Amino acid sequence: MPDNIHTEFHRMMDREAKQRQLLQCGHVFWLYGLSGSGKSTLAVALERALADAGIFSKLLDGDNIRSRLNQDLGFTDTDRRENIRRIAEVARLFIESGVVVFASFITPNQSLRAQAMEIVGSNDFTPIYVKASYETCAKRDVKGLYAKAKAGSVKNFTGKDSGFEVPHDLDPDWVIDTDALSEVDAVNQLIQRILPLVRI
Amino acid sequence: MPDNIHTEFHRMMDREAKQRQLLQCGHVFWLYGLSGSGKSTLAVALERALADAGIFSKLLDGDNIRSRLNQDLGFTDTDRRENIRRIAEVARLFIESGVVVFASFITPNQSLRAQAMEIVGSNDFTPIYVKASYETCAKRDVKGLYAKAKAGSVKNFTGKDSGFEVPHDLDPDWVIDTDALSEVDAVNQLIQRILPLVRI
Repeated sequence: MPDNIHTEFHRMMDREAKQRQLLQCGHVFWLYGLSGSGKSTLAVALERALADAGIFSKLLDGDNIRSRLNQDLGFTDTDRRENIRRIAEVARLFIESGVVVFASFITPNQSLRAQAMEIVGSNDFTPIYVKASYETCAKRDVKGLYAKAKAGSVKNFTGKDSGFEVPHDLDPDWVIDTDALSEVDAVNQLIQRILPLVRI
Repeated sequence: MPDNIHTEFHRMMDREAKQRQLLQCGHVFWLYGLSGSGKSTLAVALERALADAGIFSKLLDGDNIRSRLNQDLGFTDTDRRENIRRIAEVARLFIESGVVVFASFITPNQSLRAQAMEIVGSNDFTPIYVKASYETCAKRDVKGLYAKAKAGSVKNFTGKDSGFEVPHDLDPDWVIDTDALSEVDAVNQLIQRILPLVRI
């Protein structure tokens, strides 16, 4: 950190004061899984369900973040790492003000997930594995990416030439199998677990 | 933008829905001026004053942003540009959810200020020039930076080896002369102008 920098956190309203203002706790819910697994669909539904419960949240989405803040980054390992680093730092800025964050990103490697958790802080971070088989995701292919990957026109596509590391040591409460569950059931199940973490 | 990216804004809660939830309008107030001019002091006081008025805001501060999200950036022209780009994109993420942002950064060049405004969008962006002479700032020297700059141990220090472009065509409503005004008067003056822009 260059010499010109001095932290001034002590002078701003602190996190507790911000949380009292919103009457909620900041927390990052990090939804990860293959493209087409249903991460963003769930995140969008969760944002609305929380709003109905009076909780203010922010949705950070790989595609939208990549079209602006991270437009300078591609899909190499280095760029994926920088992509996740910046997103986690942005998520931290939101939760420091008491906002709930839904971050919806493939996050293919265990090390990337660990990086995000380290930046946010483990107490404020809950990873949610949105599980669906490659075959299911390829069949859904909402964005037409699996077809393009098959044709070879998308480089570093996760699940094809870029590997997705299936997580181990999972907390079953935070694994959502979208092969098996309907969207409504998945959202209801998650909301029951999310609300106690974000309500004051 | 690589092929893998598809924007999904249409599916999230839109800005209007988020603003209805918070009962306020998102807007970026970008405080700029020399180090020691009083930008962050004002921003901190404005955040608290808005909270007292029931408005939720986020303070983005050069020093704190640089200690985390932009820790990879220095003070060359290129890095200052990337620094401002990322901050403006982050500010945009906040105002898209209806949050008011106070961004407190030296932003020494007209082109950097224009870049920030372009990224945020001119309708959502109000620059506030926090004016104080180099001599006043050097005398205050809250962070001890002017002394260091004089001793030559801080590189690219704005106002010394890096120039600060005094703005032209200023809206007098949004120039705060901290040589002349007390902090309380400055905050009161600004709050009167800010509230109508952020209240629904």
